[in-house]
Parts: sequence; structure tokens; C-alpha cells
Amino acid sequence: MTGPAGPGSLTVVGLGPGDKQLRTPAADAALAAATDIVGYQTYLDLAGPFRAEQRVHVSDNREEIARARHAFALAAGGAAVAVVSSGDPGVFAMAAAVLEALEAADDPAWHQVALRILPGVSAAQAAAALAGAPLGHDFCALSLSDNLKPWAEIERRLALVCEADLVIALYNPRSKARPDQFGRALALLRGRRAPDTVVVLGRDVGRLDEQLTITTLAALSPEQVDMRTVVIIGSSRTRRIARPDGREWVYTPRSYPG
Amino acid sequence: MTGPAGPGSLTVVGLGPGDKQLRTPAADAALAAATDIVGYQTYLDLAGPFRAEQRVHVSDNREEIARARHAFALAAGGAAVAVVSSGDPGVFAMAAAVLEALEAADDPAWHQVALRILPGVSAAQAAAALAGAPLGHDFCALSLSDNLKPWAEIERRLALVCEADLVIALYNPRSKARPDQFGRALALLRGRRAPDTVVVLGRDVGRLDEQLTITTLAALSPEQVDMRTVVIIGSSRTRRIARPDGREWVYTPRSYPG
Repeated sequence: MTGPAGPGSLTVVGLGPGDKQLRTPAADAALAAATDIVGYQTYLDLAGPFRAEQRVHVSDNREEIARARHAFALAAGGAAVAVVSSGDPGVFAMAAAVLEALEAADDPAWHQVALRILPGVSAAQAAAALAGAPLGHDFCALSLSDNLKPWAEIERRLALVCEADLVIALYNPRSKARPDQFGRALALLRGRRAPDTVVVLGRDVGRLDEQLTITTLAALSPEQVDMRTVVIIGSSRTRRIARPDGREWVYTPRSYPG
Repeated sequence: MTGPAGPGSLTVVGLGPGDKQLRTPAADAALAAATDIVGYQTYLDLAGPFRAEQRVHVSDNREEIARARHAFALAAGGAAVAVVSSGDPGVFAMAAAVLEALEAADDPAWHQVALRILPGVSAAQAAAALAGAPLGHDFCALSLSDNLKPWAEIERRLALVCEADLVIALYNPRSKARPDQFGRALALLRGRRAPDTVVVLGRDVGRLDEQLTITTLAALSPEQVDMRTVVIIGSSRTRRIARPDGREWVYTPRSYPG
């Protein structure tokens, strides 16, 4: 006689930016060990292929909490679940949603699930490495999405990090549902940083259609940016170096004048 | 007849936090392809073992620019050089030093070197994943070292990011040469954040002697922190969840009240 299955496991897997050369062996091992893989289709495409006996659960990208609850329900029933996330799941991604679902859980079995979070190379890090080292000194990472945060708070934070002269990595900069906010953020940044401030746009870095653009705050147009773009706004110290092939490196020096 | 060697290559390799399960295949491939490996002894120990024919160049940890210049000189002579860095070389590590050395270079051959930067999982990301998801929403990463930045500027930035209610990851928090500055930073933070603000200390996360401490701003003592510690100071929203084994998860929710 077989009793009810004991609690299983839930691993939040950071896939890195896309290129399997930038995915950790820990992530590969967690995917190989999973009985069930949960994720948004784009991330499942990056994570696969899977074996025939592995169950794949596709979820909507906007429904992060529903996806997390589904994963816990499977794991509480004994499954070895991998929730896949691009980049680092701890940076504007699934890890916080999974812990939010756990904190709100009524089912005590969810707390018995063996939960692990596997970090990965984030989109901003991959774009930064391709551009040089724009995040080489003090920086911040801010989400421009006001789905869960009031826009006034986003503008307040942008103004303060400009005053602190931090390099700024902007996540979720612009979507079809929020086409105008990036332009508002850009206007705010232009009022506070010099026109020649270096800007790096990384779109799908580490994927087949990777695009890297190096421009300035004055030349940047909102139409160059979408949800698949990470925007890195340089500090007053961020510099460009010409390369022999006509491209440029971008870096933020470790030293500060004064 | 063999002419002079053409320019070689220089790859700045992010080793990740230490555990080889968190090192990317791209980093492994760059180490395997290198004729010369340059780095601080602690990072060389993480990166090795090397093959007998690979030349290993040990350098002092404080001499980042000298190390970068040495690497360019080797690469300009035709070597395939790997400069090793723990974590992500783009985050308070070797990538900015390498680009600084390149910008200042007199030798045009240095600009012909095939330069690549390979990102890795940073110390803060590894500590965050072990703790849960403290970097799950807007955050910043600041260096507390005043070797290259005036202390007054560090205090000014700390005050502004407190006002912005960002989660704060502190790099280089305390060294033997700077034993008192972390205490000064802590006093500033205590004046601006609640006593029960969650603090995560990650020491050597991803290495054999990994230590994770979850505490509060009120309870934190400077003696708990050294140069091998990443300190993550929660925002007003960062939360703790009890785990059945007596430990806790820490996360910063994606949503913001208001």
C-alpha cells in the first residue's frame, strides 16, 4: 500500500539571459531533476527541450502569483517542480512572487515544500558585459512598471537616484499597455543629467536577435525601447572608449573626483 | 619564418560566487582556452586547477590597474589571457579596471586585443538567493570603500537611497584598513530606517565556509561584518517569513502601498 506522497520540492530556476553558455550548471541540474516545469512560454522555450515524461505547465506572464500558487500546489502533492525565470529570479522576477504566495498560504503543506532559489546572470548584467562595464561603480536597478507601484513613487525614486549620481538600470521600461511612461521618465532624467550622458540599450542580450545600442540621453527616443529592453543610464562619470572597429566600450570608473 | 605574434585576446572571466555549480559554461570555456591566467590568489584558487602548460600570474588584490596592464601586455604579445574575478567582473570588480587601463594605454596594440567580458552571478545575488528574494524590488549596490571615493560622497549617497526606500546591497563594507567606516554607515542608516529593518549578511556564500545571517538594523554589530561579507539592508517593505526548521526567508514584495 502506498500512502499519500510527502511534500515535494520547488526550485526557482534562473535561466540567465538566454544563451546556454551563460546558464549555470545548477540551473541545468534542477531542470533535469524536475518532474514538472512551470513558466511563461518564452522562458519554457529558453529552458527546454524537456524529456517526454516531464510535465510542462504554461502560464501567462502577467499572472506571477497564480503561477507561484500552481507550482506550490504541485510541489505539495509530491512533485519536483522547477519554476523557470529568465535572468536572475531574484531581480524583478519570480522569486519574490513565490515567497509572497508562500507567506499567504493557508495550506501548511506548502511550508513543508523544499524550496530553493537558484540565482542567474540578470539581463542588466549581460547587457553591461557586452557594452563594457557601465555598472562598474555604484548603481541601482529600478522597475518602471506602475502595475504594482504608484507612478509618483517611481518619479520620486528616479529623482533621488539622479541626485545620488548612481548609474541606473531600468527594468520593464515600456510596454504596449504603458507606452507613455518611458517618455515621462526620460523627460525627468533629461532635466537632471547632462545631454551627453551615456545610455546603453540591451535588447534580448544573450538571445539570437541580441541588439546593443550605445547612445546619449539627448539622442535617446522612447521608440527604441520596449519590454524586452534593459536601459542603463550612465552617471556623470560613465565614459565611452572608441574601438578600432568603430564600435565603443562604455564603463563607469571606480574612482570619484574630489 | 614566423613573424611577430599578432595581438591576442583578453577575457575578463566572472567566476561567480565560488561554487562551480554557479559558474557559467562560458567562464569554464574561457579558462580552458587561456594560455595565461591573471588574478589575485584567492580567485585563482577558485578558478583552478589549471593545466601544466597554462601560465598563472598571481597579483596583489589591491593593484587592479597594474593587474589589468599586465594582462594587456601579455595579450598584446599574442597570449590568450583570462583575468579572473569573483562574482560578476562588471560589479565592483575587474571589468572597469581593465577598461580604465585600456583608455589610458599608449600602446596601440592594446586596442587591437580581442577583449571580452563574461558576466557572472555576483556575491549579492548569491546571498540574496540563499536568503530568499531581498533584491526582489528596486535596489541599489554601493561600495563603502573610500579608497577611490570621498567618504562624504558615500554618506550623501546612503542618505539619498534611504530616502528613495531602496533595498541597499553594500560591497566592501569593512576592512582592516577601514575598521570604523561601517559603524559610521550603520549609524547613518539607523537614523533613517526603522530598528526592525531586515538585514541579510552573506559571508563567502557559494564557498565551503558559507555563512548567512538574518538580523535587524538594531541588532547588527559592525564586528559581524568584514571584507568577505555582502550586507543587504532591507527597505521599509522587506519582510521575513518563518520556516518550519526555525530559519527564515527574507523577501521584498513587488508591490508598493499607495
